[in-house]
Amino acid sequence: MVIDNNLESNEIQIQQGREKWLEAVRAKDLKRLMTFYSPEIVLFDLTPPLQLLGENSYIKNWKECFEMIDGLIDYEIRDQDITASSDVAFSHSLTRMKAKTKTGHELKTWFRVTVGFRKINGKWLITHEHISVPFDPTSRQASLDLKPEE
Amino acid sequence: MVIDNNLESNEIQIQQGREKWLEAVRAKDLKRLMTFYSPEIVLFDLTPPLQLLGENSYIKNWKECFEMIDGLIDYEIRDQDITASSDVAFSHSLTRMKAKTKTGHELKTWFRVTVGFRKINGKWLITHEHISVPFDPTSRQASLDLKPEE
Repeated sequence: MVIDNNLESNEIQIQQGREKWLEAVRAKDLKRLMTFYSPEIVLFDLTPPLQLLGENSYIKNWKECFEMIDGLIDYEIRDQDITASSDVAFSHSLTRMKAKTKTGHELKTWFRVTVGFRKINGKWLITHEHISVPFDPTSRQASLDLKPEE
Repeated sequence: MVIDNNLESNEIQIQQGREKWLEAVRAKDLKRLMTFYSPEIVLFDLTPPLQLLGENSYIKNWKECFEMIDGLIDYEIRDQDITASSDVAFSHSLTRMKAKTKTGHELKTWFRVTVGFRKINGKWLITHEHISVPFDPTSRQASLDLKPEE
């Protein structure tokens, strides 16, 4: 297939996939969201454990997140960089989530996102996701108030 | 080239590269270590800022780390998974660093590592690295005492 050998086209496919993924997160549409993931997803998330394996634990994770949030999730992505070959790709970006919990707490944090993709049966699927904030080595507190440099 | 189309061989190349990278870290050999990185490396590190751009800030980072450590660094890698095409690859693993600082403090923490690679002029180079620990959402403390599940 010509498309498979067109690297630029692969980056565009992933870019478009990221936009559709974002729509699903904003709309808290778990069913649509999971169509972007491989059943063998390995997740390194913001909070423990060290890793979550497989889509079932991942669905549970997103479900808890969506249930905790009041209304829609505002999600801003910047400094996104996509590196793609014909069937393996990764991307990284800085992301700001802004949302209100049902208990009235406001979440507004920049974090780092790295995503690993494989093209399986002609469709790019996420097989790995790594989401984090750094921590202050003196206080050992998570650095939740950092901003990207302009 | 035949090797370029042999995916298994690419994974083996990266695996061998990771072993040599590890030798350089253990030996605190900064010059050798930097041969594994692209000049355009984008680093999401354990501690702030959100991201470090380019090999110069990365060299500074490793230098400070190596100077802080008394003696060699013990580094254990597990659950490593490598996904490679002919010129783009990524890997993820859990890693334990064990070392003593010059001020007598013992570091012994499991963290998550994701690495993005590109094959440039026939050599696999690291263009992106994401290293983190999760944090406890209640105390907001970095979770430095987690262990991988057996």
